[in-house]
Amino acid sequence: MMPAAETKIRFIDRLEQAVRRRGTPALVGIDPHLDLLPPNILPAEGPQRRLLPRQRLAVAVREFCAGVLDVIGSMVPIVKFQMAFFEQLGPEGMSALAELVGHARRYGLLVILDGKRGDIGSTAVAYAEGMLGPAPVSSWGGDAVTVSPYLGEDSLQPFIETAVARQGGVFVLVKTSNPGSGLFQDLIAEGMPLYRHVAAWVEQQAVRTKGRCGYGDVGGVVGATFHEQLAELRQVMPHTWFLVPGYGTQGGTARDVAPAFDPTGLGAIVNNSRGILFAYRRREFERFGPTRWQEAIEAATREMIDQLRTDTPAGRLTSR
Amino acid sequence: MMPAAETKIRFIDRLEQAVRRRGTPALVGIDPHLDLLPPNILPAEGPQRRLLPRQRLAVAVREFCAGVLDVIGSMVPIVKFQMAFFEQLGPEGMSALAELVGHARRYGLLVILDGKRGDIGSTAVAYAEGMLGPAPVSSWGGDAVTVSPYLGEDSLQPFIETAVARQGGVFVLVKTSNPGSGLFQDLIAEGMPLYRHVAAWVEQQAVRTKGRCGYGDVGGVVGATFHEQLAELRQVMPHTWFLVPGYGTQGGTARDVAPAFDPTGLGAIVNNSRGILFAYRRREFERFGPTRWQEAIEAATREMIDQLRTDTPAGRLTSR
Repeated sequence: MMPAAETKIRFIDRLEQAVRRRGTPALVGIDPHLDLLPPNILPAEGPQRRLLPRQRLAVAVREFCAGVLDVIGSMVPIVKFQMAFFEQLGPEGMSALAELVGHARRYGLLVILDGKRGDIGSTAVAYAEGMLGPAPVSSWGGDAVTVSPYLGEDSLQPFIETAVARQGGVFVLVKTSNPGSGLFQDLIAEGMPLYRHVAAWVEQQAVRTKGRCGYGDVGGVVGATFHEQLAELRQVMPHTWFLVPGYGTQGGTARDVAPAFDPTGLGAIVNNSRGILFAYRRREFERFGPTRWQEAIEAATREMIDQLRTDTPAGRLTSR
Repeated sequence: MMPAAETKIRFIDRLEQAVRRRGTPALVGIDPHLDLLPPNILPAEGPQRRLLPRQRLAVAVREFCAGVLDVIGSMVPIVKFQMAFFEQLGPEGMSALAELVGHARRYGLLVILDGKRGDIGSTAVAYAEGMLGPAPVSSWGGDAVTVSPYLGEDSLQPFIETAVARQGGVFVLVKTSNPGSGLFQDLIAEGMPLYRHVAAWVEQQAVRTKGRCGYGDVGGVVGATFHEQLAELRQVMPHTWFLVPGYGTQGGTARDVAPAFDPTGLGAIVNNSRGILFAYRRREFERFGPTRWQEAIEAATREMIDQLRTDTPAGRLTSR
């Protein structure tokens, strides 16, 4: 009876509990860039690696990512798989992704599938049903997905409905972390930028899907690299949990992401991908050398957790 | 020597030649909705089918889609695979997709991978390199992809650069065919709707990637269901080849899509998915019954080709 009851807890309340349990909103992004994999995982240099058989590349990616999960599996509440790096390797890469999602879930990690999908009606249903919910309810076993809003409401609702039915979540792109995100997102319509229109819609959906923690199953992606917009959006989206990319390699610091949180330290998860996965390449961790890449990952994860604890309201998560 | 020279022809010129050769701009969308597959391909009724093992579903989808390609392989110039319906079936579905792309190419069909991807910098590169170019240059073997513009220029350029380097193409969502597409796309900024801002950017890129036929490797997705916008966009995007969804089941007719073409009958390809794949369910073709679904597909494809020839400038393609 208990497991059945357990599965009835909404995504957002499971996320809140996981963040409290692990005491940190740090989210590790699993982005296995071929060119950056450690040499004992995949020999040959950068571009030459692309010439290796895809099967060989997929084996290396699986081994590396499993090694990442083995380190961080008990340190953080949630991981995010960047689907592009698996899709890049063809069907073999997608098989690796499916196995790795299972690997992550065995550590009790929540799993975001970052595919930024978006399509019309029945096609959106196919994406949503394939991605959301534990296997075998879904094919890919994600707890949450990222979606792109350009196609409008009828492209987003199928994701939200499937998510709510399966105790899953949806993070809608609002203001992304890339330098060129403003080209369309910052266009001013009816007195406010496009991203604020998307924000208003997302906040409505968050209210509609609100859990016991006060946030909704529908969240928003807001980049760490746009400090002011992060603060602005926190104000106008009080029920929307933020997925904040752009920390670390892209330039965002713990101070930059501090406005993403509410005063109790909830309301945001902060993603770091390359800064953790490829920490062995960072000067601060070069003491480990390329073969001890897992120790570098552990040190970098601890560093991020400490920085978020010191410089953001997330420090209050562990002082209760 | 000839094949090497052949591969140097830009995507857009290959598309133009293929459209002329087959004498039609009809594009068949390969969207294998599980619920609509013929009963001799997959037994059981609609929703109960989802309970079958994924491996079984993937075999059925592969068999059905191969059967579609066997009928239309010499009738139309190009097909579009809707990735969602393959991704929905997990790794097994993605393996089926890879095989089916190969099957399509053996008929000389050009292949669009419709994933509406969009992500930042190095992630966009991973998507683009995985999808664009014949296997084994890419993992998926697409001639062109669809992309979503919300993330802005630095998310789109990696697709365009990879496409140009590999004689591929990119279709950017401009005005989509779904009823709710206006929520964000129609917001007025600086005196014109968002989709016009996207259109202006796409047209610039089309000019920059122009082939001998006068159109560019960067095209635009413009729905058949918004007749006026189609005519408006044809005016302001003279170098942009249109991919026009929404024909058939979504309500668009040949007359609706006529404004997508230039006076010589070039400049657009028109997609029909369900109206062709599941023609055996349409009243006009019920005489074939569910087991003769391939004959229904052939009749529906001929019907679409004829309607486009009669009611649009595409009729001029064959009268030269």
